[in-house]
Amino acid sequence: MQRIVKPLIQKNDTKIVLVVLDGLGGLPVNGKTELETAATPNMDALARESACGLHTPVAPGITPGSGPGHLGLFGYDPLECQIGRGILEALGLGLEVRKTDVAIRCNYATIRDGLIVDRRAGRIPTEQSRRLTERLQREIPSIDGVEVTFAPGMEHRCAVLLRFPQPLEPDAALIPDTDPQKEGKAPLAPVPQSKSAEKVAQVAEKLISRAHEVLKNEEKANFILTRGFSGMPDIPTFEEAFGLRSLAIATYPMYRGLAKLVGMNAPALEGSVEDEIDYLKQQYSNYDFFFLHVKKVDSYGEDGNFNGKVARIEEFDALLPRILAMNPDVLMITGDHSTPAVMKGHSWHPVPVLLRSFYVLGGLCSSFSERECTRGELGIFPTVNLMPLALANSLRLKKFGA
Amino acid sequence: MQRIVKPLIQKNDTKIVLVVLDGLGGLPVNGKTELETAATPNMDALARESACGLHTPVAPGITPGSGPGHLGLFGYDPLECQIGRGILEALGLGLEVRKTDVAIRCNYATIRDGLIVDRRAGRIPTEQSRRLTERLQREIPSIDGVEVTFAPGMEHRCAVLLRFPQPLEPDAALIPDTDPQKEGKAPLAPVPQSKSAEKVAQVAEKLISRAHEVLKNEEKANFILTRGFSGMPDIPTFEEAFGLRSLAIATYPMYRGLAKLVGMNAPALEGSVEDEIDYLKQQYSNYDFFFLHVKKVDSYGEDGNFNGKVARIEEFDALLPRILAMNPDVLMITGDHSTPAVMKGHSWHPVPVLLRSFYVLGGLCSSFSERECTRGELGIFPTVNLMPLALANSLRLKKFGA
Repeated sequence: MQRIVKPLIQKNDTKIVLVVLDGLGGLPVNGKTELETAATPNMDALARESACGLHTPVAPGITPGSGPGHLGLFGYDPLECQIGRGILEALGLGLEVRKTDVAIRCNYATIRDGLIVDRRAGRIPTEQSRRLTERLQREIPSIDGVEVTFAPGMEHRCAVLLRFPQPLEPDAALIPDTDPQKEGKAPLAPVPQSKSAEKVAQVAEKLISRAHEVLKNEEKANFILTRGFSGMPDIPTFEEAFGLRSLAIATYPMYRGLAKLVGMNAPALEGSVEDEIDYLKQQYSNYDFFFLHVKKVDSYGEDGNFNGKVARIEEFDALLPRILAMNPDVLMITGDHSTPAVMKGHSWHPVPVLLRSFYVLGGLCSSFSERECTRGELGIFPTVNLMPLALANSLRLKKFGA
Repeated sequence: MQRIVKPLIQKNDTKIVLVVLDGLGGLPVNGKTELETAATPNMDALARESACGLHTPVAPGITPGSGPGHLGLFGYDPLECQIGRGILEALGLGLEVRKTDVAIRCNYATIRDGLIVDRRAGRIPTEQSRRLTERLQREIPSIDGVEVTFAPGMEHRCAVLLRFPQPLEPDAALIPDTDPQKEGKAPLAPVPQSKSAEKVAQVAEKLISRAHEVLKNEEKANFILTRGFSGMPDIPTFEEAFGLRSLAIATYPMYRGLAKLVGMNAPALEGSVEDEIDYLKQQYSNYDFFFLHVKKVDSYGEDGNFNGKVARIEEFDALLPRILAMNPDVLMITGDHSTPAVMKGHSWHPVPVLLRSFYVLGGLCSSFSERECTRGELGIFPTVNLMPLALANSLRLKKFGA
């Protein structure tokens, strides 16, 4: 898709706003989905004059994680461009990742006589894990000239970033997990699966033994298990791919991380959805493309809290007029995947989307919902096609062929 | 698609039932299709609470044979996985085919002075052809260490299976038909089109001359013309691809053969649709996936018998409550292709499908028909995507990416 789009790109002064209500899509309870239950007069009015449809993040039947879900929305094929677990974890913990880096997810674990007796170190409290992670950072700032960055996570989790002096080969992180997945077994060695992974494996081996040295007197967390070794995907930046100066407005580190992965500007930000919209307004003249992320819709879905998810959707709807007041040339409202409250998790269901611009048919959907969007002019389409539609609707694409 | 799905598969105790009403899709007569004309209260009620749509077996405008039609439903891309005519014929006649085999369709023909005077040997009666085929089997049990199996067909048709001692190369059956397609011409020689087809061609040449030797005193059927040389496609089994223990319930050998081709259990079975459903009930605890094939819907379509096709659809609808009583986690009802009675044959039209599970929107279609299914939440999609949807709806797929 990017291959077709790139030679057609032309720049102009239009503004594109992509609002991602995380986990927006849902399933019915008492006959109505979360979005159908929510009172959303503003989105309903918008849907009536917008191009509507449903998008499939990865493929029919495939439930996307947050990474593939967002990459698709950003115009990257999530099947071609897969992001390692370590990278996602590091991004989620607020680390900045470069092409010189290998990221690793770590668990604190308990080891006795060479065998893992607890893979999660008794799920030690986050505060204790933070303290241990800070100690590791002080004691192991680097290994053989490789800069080591530790980031504390929740409970027994942390992430490690190994920053090498030079950019790495694409297969430099091809190292299986050292977590044996079962208690009573010895931890595995980090065995390189490619020539260029040998150097990374050596550093990983030293990391593990030095961490044990530092932690050996801890009662529970006396070892680290490493998982999800991964390097940066080799992809063009959002600006290279689409010619857009872009700003990510997100309060959760994971989503800023995903935006940074494609080179978006993604400053640290805290606050409410209202604060996010205020920030959009403040930055409106400085960028072409704005990704505004609303996390809480998904969080309530994940908790199985149908009414909570409904309330978060309504909360956004009430704030929507503030975005409309900026009159973006293209406004898209959608989710990165579905999170039906009845499933308490992500699901494979296509995600409703509306795209408002001067150049749509409209008039096909009476409100904004999963079922109404089946009537829309966009049909059911792969998520990765949304960015070209945004570019087209902002008149940023030239004709293909004469 | 299988490549994406395979690493995500997780097993559970759910049951998936796929009902194939062969040739289900139709075209209007007096304004209504066969499915619209049929009184189908049970399928209509089901459609109202199911995910509905239409699937395209091969590609838009392409009319599928039974082979590609079923392979798509079983989750195999019919363009990547093409099945030779000889294999299909052998399967249809109840032969079991292995990776060491080359299958050939044969016609009894009449030859005089080296020229074919009747390509179908006067369409000799099936009984006579069966007798001749048995004689060939007795006289030619093997050729140069290659086991030869003859299977009698209808009228002038039979099939031959050559079983080699070792598995064959993928291109070992690259041999054109020896049928010159016109009377008054000499039969063609089996000319190998690849290096690894040379051995097969030698055996085929001997087969043809020895068969003529055996048949030379027959008045009509004194020669065999060979067509559709083919070996087994190199594909994973259904269980390897999807992690499902599967049972095919079909009374026609061809459909059991197609199921066996992907490794389904497909015991010989006779009787009515009611008997098939009884067998489903009897075997319900022994498998994860059930393919239940209803042939007669297609047969009446092929005959151009609109009302007969309507009656067969109604007959199935009346039996549907027996399947519903088993309460499968995922129930799909569809066809392998369309067979409009007005066309007296297969057609390219997308095929209506309903998928009932706990995890669908539903509420979009008022009945089960070609036109109502255009309103459904599944849209118009490639047939090969149906299996991933079935797996998703039975919660047998993990999340893709974190």
